[in-house]
Amino acid sequence: MNMFKMDVLSSTLQFSTSHLSSTTTSTIVALCVFFALLCACIIIGHLLEETRWANESITALLLGLCSGLVVLLVTKFRSIDILTFSEDLFFIYLLPPIIFNAGFKIEKKLFFRNFNYILLFGVLGTVISFCLISLGAFLLINRTGIANLDIKDILAIGAILSATDSVCTLQVLSQEETPLLYGIVFGEGVVNDAMSIVLFNSVQSLNFSTINAVTALELLGTFLYLFCTSTVLGIVVGLLSAYLIKTFYFGRHSTDREVALMMLMAYFSYMIAELLELSGILTIFVCGIVMSHYTWHNVTENSRITTKHSFATISFISETFIFLYVGMDALDIDKWKTSIASVGTLIAVSSTFIALVLIGRASLVFPIANIANCFMTRENTRIEFRSQFVIWWAGLMRGAVTIALSCNQFLISEVTSTEDSALMITSTITLVLFSTMVFGSITKPLIEVVQLRHSRQTVSDSNDYHDELRLLFLNGDDSINETMDEPLQRRTRLSLMMRYPATTVHYYWRQFDYKFMRHIFGGRDLVPVVPGTPLGED
Amino acid sequence: MNMFKMDVLSSTLQFSTSHLSSTTTSTIVALCVFFALLCACIIIGHLLEETRWANESITALLLGLCSGLVVLLVTKFRSIDILTFSEDLFFIYLLPPIIFNAGFKIEKKLFFRNFNYILLFGVLGTVISFCLISLGAFLLINRTGIANLDIKDILAIGAILSATDSVCTLQVLSQEETPLLYGIVFGEGVVNDAMSIVLFNSVQSLNFSTINAVTALELLGTFLYLFCTSTVLGIVVGLLSAYLIKTFYFGRHSTDREVALMMLMAYFSYMIAELLELSGILTIFVCGIVMSHYTWHNVTENSRITTKHSFATISFISETFIFLYVGMDALDIDKWKTSIASVGTLIAVSSTFIALVLIGRASLVFPIANIANCFMTRENTRIEFRSQFVIWWAGLMRGAVTIALSCNQFLISEVTSTEDSALMITSTITLVLFSTMVFGSITKPLIEVVQLRHSRQTVSDSNDYHDELRLLFLNGDDSINETMDEPLQRRTRLSLMMRYPATTVHYYWRQFDYKFMRHIFGGRDLVPVVPGTPLGED
Repeated sequence: MNMFKMDVLSSTLQFSTSHLSSTTTSTIVALCVFFALLCACIIIGHLLEETRWANESITALLLGLCSGLVVLLVTKFRSIDILTFSEDLFFIYLLPPIIFNAGFKIEKKLFFRNFNYILLFGVLGTVISFCLISLGAFLLINRTGIANLDIKDILAIGAILSATDSVCTLQVLSQEETPLLYGIVFGEGVVNDAMSIVLFNSVQSLNFSTINAVTALELLGTFLYLFCTSTVLGIVVGLLSAYLIKTFYFGRHSTDREVALMMLMAYFSYMIAELLELSGILTIFVCGIVMSHYTWHNVTENSRITTKHSFATISFISETFIFLYVGMDALDIDKWKTSIASVGTLIAVSSTFIALVLIGRASLVFPIANIANCFMTRENTRIEFRSQFVIWWAGLMRGAVTIALSCNQFLISEVTSTEDSALMITSTITLVLFSTMVFGSITKPLIEVVQLRHSRQTVSDSNDYHDELRLLFLNGDDSINETMDEPLQRRTRLSLMMRYPATTVHYYWRQFDYKFMRHIFGGRDLVPVVPGTPLGED
Repeated sequence: MNMFKMDVLSSTLQFSTSHLSSTTTSTIVALCVFFALLCACIIIGHLLEETRWANESITALLLGLCSGLVVLLVTKFRSIDILTFSEDLFFIYLLPPIIFNAGFKIEKKLFFRNFNYILLFGVLGTVISFCLISLGAFLLINRTGIANLDIKDILAIGAILSATDSVCTLQVLSQEETPLLYGIVFGEGVVNDAMSIVLFNSVQSLNFSTINAVTALELLGTFLYLFCTSTVLGIVVGLLSAYLIKTFYFGRHSTDREVALMMLMAYFSYMIAELLELSGILTIFVCGIVMSHYTWHNVTENSRITTKHSFATISFISETFIFLYVGMDALDIDKWKTSIASVGTLIAVSSTFIALVLIGRASLVFPIANIANCFMTRENTRIEFRSQFVIWWAGLMRGAVTIALSCNQFLISEVTSTEDSALMITSTITLVLFSTMVFGSITKPLIEVVQLRHSRQTVSDSNDYHDELRLLFLNGDDSINETMDEPLQRRTRLSLMMRYPATTVHYYWRQFDYKFMRHIFGGRDLVPVVPGTPLGED
């Protein structure tokens, strides 16, 4: 490190200020490099917008790799702090804004309309993927003698490789043209992140010295506990923010206070969840949804524009930063040195991982989709084969969550040997680089070939269907009351609920929301619009 | 630390996730506490908005003190990381957004109209204050034998105590009612921060083993060098951002990229200045001014609203955080333990500091103001006595910059003994607490008593005067060209320039700006307005 610092600094000025200590100087060098690279990423990504083969993730990844190489050459292949992936940085500062923004900007209608599918793919699918990949890793790595991993490590690999990164595919899909597909891929991606992290936490928290049926039950119990408590915590913090902002009416004095409070409360929800050892990711995601449903409607017009765009901007910067960071981290020479395995072994393990991902994904998407299709009565809610293919494809990319979890598991493993741990980390990095760059760059052309642009009628159909249903319910409430007798009415509702459970739940939720929640926590069209300060004045 | 962590955590859950390491856990506890306190500050500050005696700074300071006390009680008076002031955190993350926002939201007209006064008070005044306080400290502390300080420490104290904090006063003054006074206090405050930090850096960078006239010249040279290079760097980065955003026309694809680029470039200017060992504070301030003049006008409407409010929000959060942090830091038990001085000594040194601040400030404000009045030909640009009083008062408060510089100087001092260093730090903290709470809380009533609300005519007068002048210049450009001969015209301009140098420079700058700069870097009314995405859609 010192050498690099000296090279950069000594040539600049003859006098030195002791104003900042030496750790700080290295921080400053690192920040400078990263800020310059981030700016470059944004500009290059903007220029490549129209290109078929590239996207922002790949640009950032490649730029990260190049600058990592430059740093390595400058430091003459010595290990350097700047290249080491810090999972604290990732989990405390980079991931929360991305997940919060995913919840905040979520199209709630889109999400809840496809709620069944999202649950199926996101929750059930991730669990299946977790089991299959764990089993596969056990058979292909431990049994073949490539490495000797603990049962905990094997399960961790299952969770690590289950965390997909569907950003690439989402950039290609169009929400207007294929709303069902977009909704499923988007919703699954978000739920999947939360699920794999919760699964990973559950695996880590258990003691696997004796494995029996009780352990599996414990795993399930821990998982359910984490899932429920985290969700509840997110809802509570979100509602609290809505209540505070509605009650104290901040817009009267300054919109900046509202924005500040929203930012702080969102982040606070994550921190308090981590403090209570729950899943912060799930909490902040739920908090984002609640905030966009209530809090966001309680603030001034200017605050709405500001929060909408600043959350998106922060999330965008974090995402780009992560890819850049992953690219640079791939050249952390220490990891490659520690792994004494030959290139052949590395390729073998990486290929195994890639194969597991491909097969594991296929053996959950196609069965689930086809079984679900059997239960779907209406044509336009079915998933046709090419949509299934796109869903399968979208789940092949692996990203920063995978690397972060892998570092977390194998950098401080007590059981597994250092060489095997390093092998696992380098294989994971290889998998991420390969999937993002190879799978990622052919996503756009591939999806264009699969040609999904024709199914435009889905939107209107789907809307019709919901309108129809809503009409039925509304009738059941008001006009039919007089003409229809009570038992018949109840029977109609019951049969409706059986046929469209998600929609029915959504309907009752809306009733509850309008009659009760909105009076306490505010929401759309309920709080008088406070005109913000006009632009240019203060 | 451990004990506190255990108390909080062990009572919550029986299983532990090793997902986050133990350093991270303490970070999370600290972040949780700070986020909760920040939210509390915002809410309490909002509720106290109408009160005469309180303001946000005092609320934050008191809350910080209280929570520091609670933490101390919980940990049973053991030292705890959370209470230690980290100057890196302050200089790298908290101060830059505040200074950038000060530059970004600056009323350029207000600033440049009062440019002469701001330079007089901000630059000359700070230098005078620096000399007087250094001399006073030398005579009152070293000569009386209270402590034995190095010459470098004495000069550092001069710079440390010269950094004023006029936030309190600005909250009370009204920009509409007393524009001249507001402009001077605001402008001086900003320039003063930059000046004292540059002075401090200059002092630290020099070798004081032999003191003679050359040392003084070196100090001056270093100071001028830092001042000029930092300013130029800020201008360059600001213009670069304007050029990039204008050329690449980011709004076409997404407003988030524009906002991200503006944030990143602003911060980058600070980092690059620190890397080159210049004054990052001055650089980011200048960068803020340039960005608000060019870059801000090149982005979409939504990006403008977002940047305006998000920069203000981040600055607001940082400011509140700093006061909270200073409050908590005051209870860092280690500092008080190391200072073995008796309570009497502490009070003596603190009183000396307060006296130095009071007298030093008085002996620069009143002379400068009265000398300046002699040169001012027009009645409404003179500073009447009660305005002088307010300017004097505004410069009495000391804030976070003082504490940060003091920690920087005395935590790692090689020459001065540990006890004397600790004494200086505790005295500085006492000074900051006293001035913010005592002087701060009587600011509002005091200024209301001084009754400045009547001088409303100043605005229109001042405008008239500028309009008049502009008309003269415009005539000189266009209509008079035909009727007046060249030498006469030039003579008129020359005499005008002698009488109103700042205004004349401003006039030529505007000519240059319109004819040359704006074509390259964009600016108001030059770039076609790109309608942002309407609210609610994506």
